[in-house]
Amino acid sequence: MQFHQANLPNGLTILGETSPAARSMALGFFVRTGARDETPAESGVSHFLEHMVFKGTPRRSALEVNRDFSRIGADNNAFTSEENTVFHACFLPEYLPEAVDVLADILRPSLRGEDFDMEKKVILEEIGMYEDQPTYSAYDQARKLHFGDHRLGNSVLGSVASGDQMAAYFARRYVAPNVTVAAAGNFDWSKLVDEVGRHCARWEAGPAAREGVRETAGTAGFRVVKKDKVAKEHVMLIAGGPPAESPLRYAADMLAMAVGDDSGSRLYWELVDPGLAESADASFHENEGAGSFFTSMSCEPEQTEDNLAILMCVLREVREEGITPDELEQARSKVLSRLVRGSERPKGRMMALGMNWTYQHQYRSVDDELRSFEGVTLDDVRRVLELYPIDRVTTLALGPLAEVKRPVV
Amino acid sequence: MQFHQANLPNGLTILGETSPAARSMALGFFVRTGARDETPAESGVSHFLEHMVFKGTPRRSALEVNRDFSRIGADNNAFTSEENTVFHACFLPEYLPEAVDVLADILRPSLRGEDFDMEKKVILEEIGMYEDQPTYSAYDQARKLHFGDHRLGNSVLGSVASGDQMAAYFARRYVAPNVTVAAAGNFDWSKLVDEVGRHCARWEAGPAAREGVRETAGTAGFRVVKKDKVAKEHVMLIAGGPPAESPLRYAADMLAMAVGDDSGSRLYWELVDPGLAESADASFHENEGAGSFFTSMSCEPEQTEDNLAILMCVLREVREEGITPDELEQARSKVLSRLVRGSERPKGRMMALGMNWTYQHQYRSVDDELRSFEGVTLDDVRRVLELYPIDRVTTLALGPLAEVKRPVV
Repeated sequence: MQFHQANLPNGLTILGETSPAARSMALGFFVRTGARDETPAESGVSHFLEHMVFKGTPRRSALEVNRDFSRIGADNNAFTSEENTVFHACFLPEYLPEAVDVLADILRPSLRGEDFDMEKKVILEEIGMYEDQPTYSAYDQARKLHFGDHRLGNSVLGSVASGDQMAAYFARRYVAPNVTVAAAGNFDWSKLVDEVGRHCARWEAGPAAREGVRETAGTAGFRVVKKDKVAKEHVMLIAGGPPAESPLRYAADMLAMAVGDDSGSRLYWELVDPGLAESADASFHENEGAGSFFTSMSCEPEQTEDNLAILMCVLREVREEGITPDELEQARSKVLSRLVRGSERPKGRMMALGMNWTYQHQYRSVDDELRSFEGVTLDDVRRVLELYPIDRVTTLALGPLAEVKRPVV
Repeated sequence: MQFHQANLPNGLTILGETSPAARSMALGFFVRTGARDETPAESGVSHFLEHMVFKGTPRRSALEVNRDFSRIGADNNAFTSEENTVFHACFLPEYLPEAVDVLADILRPSLRGEDFDMEKKVILEEIGMYEDQPTYSAYDQARKLHFGDHRLGNSVLGSVASGDQMAAYFARRYVAPNVTVAAAGNFDWSKLVDEVGRHCARWEAGPAAREGVRETAGTAGFRVVKKDKVAKEHVMLIAGGPPAESPLRYAADMLAMAVGDDSGSRLYWELVDPGLAESADASFHENEGAGSFFTSMSCEPEQTEDNLAILMCVLREVREEGITPDELEQARSKVLSRLVRGSERPKGRMMALGMNWTYQHQYRSVDDELRSFEGVTLDDVRRVLELYPIDRVTTLALGPLAEVKRPVV
């Protein structure tokens, strides 16, 4: 595998990892924007804009966008998170020019008023659907409670902004320096640079600014949200963790794996295996400037308080004593296996390439990443726990209960 | 990539495709058994047995099975279909001995009475969950209606057999000649053969029989099943198609893609794009001895009859006139892209390796498959349509409607 990089004069970055053993390729346009870049009045506009991108351009109707992806047999999709909006496609290398053409074209959408009104219904349905999912709803509300006035508490779903707000947001955020084009697989690098240059060289430059990037330990709040139509109680806990730029992120990832991997971990053996909880898992989330440990648990309402006490004991014990050498080894096996399996497809490498660049402005090969995980020691894990006490949590419970006692541990 | 094959004296087949560019490997145990191999009294036993396989062996408790997969960071799973039960795992090549050990061990399960009674609840919940899904339920009932007394109409979910029946079924079906072990990725072939030999050489031989393998055009029945809690009407149509062993299967797959791919096809442009139906797609299913074309459509109940008339017109037109050169080309792009993307990971190749062997007793490289799809002509498609009239359908409608008029076209 070989790494390549180029920049257009307007600030757009092009990255490539070519691997002659692959037969297909993956291409992504990573826009460094998401819910955290929205003002309160713009809440939800990043996600709505992701939908509008597929609704047509000066050169293509929505039908033609669909038809042109379909014609080249592309597997294409998009997603919006707190800080990224990503448009991507996987296809055979012979279709590189067509794929760049359609992806670059849709990233300069028409944003027509009538399409906006039509899509509003789809967005409202999608918001309603997510809000009906207790796990997602608990996640969304727990973020808000944990981050307080930090912009990482902004909801991706939000509400529905106006068309004018969307146009202003687009002009501010979709500037070339906020866009990274990443490709992986078997393709001709110079052809990629030519095609991206041809379609994107005239994109507006503008500043790649992001406000409110700072660490936060979170509020450590505690809230119970009663929701009647939900059968189980869903508890979401968030603690601070190292940010995406920190070298401690590898240790943080392995720590979360040891504490809460859903195929065997402290929480699994304490809560899930004995049948006390339906699920209990922990994961590490990296964001620009601020990371977090998420722990979630769902169970029968009457077991919530007992389970929460057990869960808090586990977190406190981990914070005080760290994890065992055996737990570190098991976490290592799992992390390495996940990393290697995820890298077998061009799509996995394209995602890693784009994300690493977005956060670290750095190329990390699979071997670089393997070495970083292999090098994590028990001391590194202890350092994470000292800087980021995993039991200093914000807690949100959502379900049939009106009250849950805050556990004393 | 290199292909390898070996057989144990008891009839078990071992297959491998080694690719030095891969970093991980995938391993599957393919048992040639499923719903079609069950007597009416045994209905559902294949799927129940798949669950019991994870419940412990003379050497391992259920906990230890879970722990041993987890320890090597394996991504493991299993599934049961009408004619296959497959247990598989993806992991780093250094864990080959451990992975063979646990997979081979669980395929000789203890089938303890108390575990059987415990698992019964899980199975009943799973059956209930699937029956609540209108799409699955329509699929299951349409198969039964279409295949009539042909064993491919047997339901995978079935009901719950007794423990004695399961033991007898296991003894009859899980014999070595019915098992193919397939591995793909970066691994040492002779080590695989050694390990599989060490664990599986004493498995019982027995005959690899399968009853009732024959072609069928289906009953062409028409049935409406009223189900109150379902909002949309779900219509499933089945027509006969070439069996898995037929060289016509490539043309059949591309024909189905042109008729009903969900990202753009005749049905998509006639029904989904104009907003008449929520979904409308077609696919080709290969089984031993008998293939089928499945077409499914869901829509508002009041549009069912009109949509069904449009759908039948599309199928008749295709049967009479075939598809266009442009449709064949688009289907080819999509099929080739799907094939190549699916082959990038060891898991995809392991599945293809095991399935091709099960049906064709033949190794097919990615290039072999690509060439076969590339070679499909409009004449091949016409031949498929002559032998298997795609509009001679069995129809099952499930949803709020008590009556649906059979369309006259």
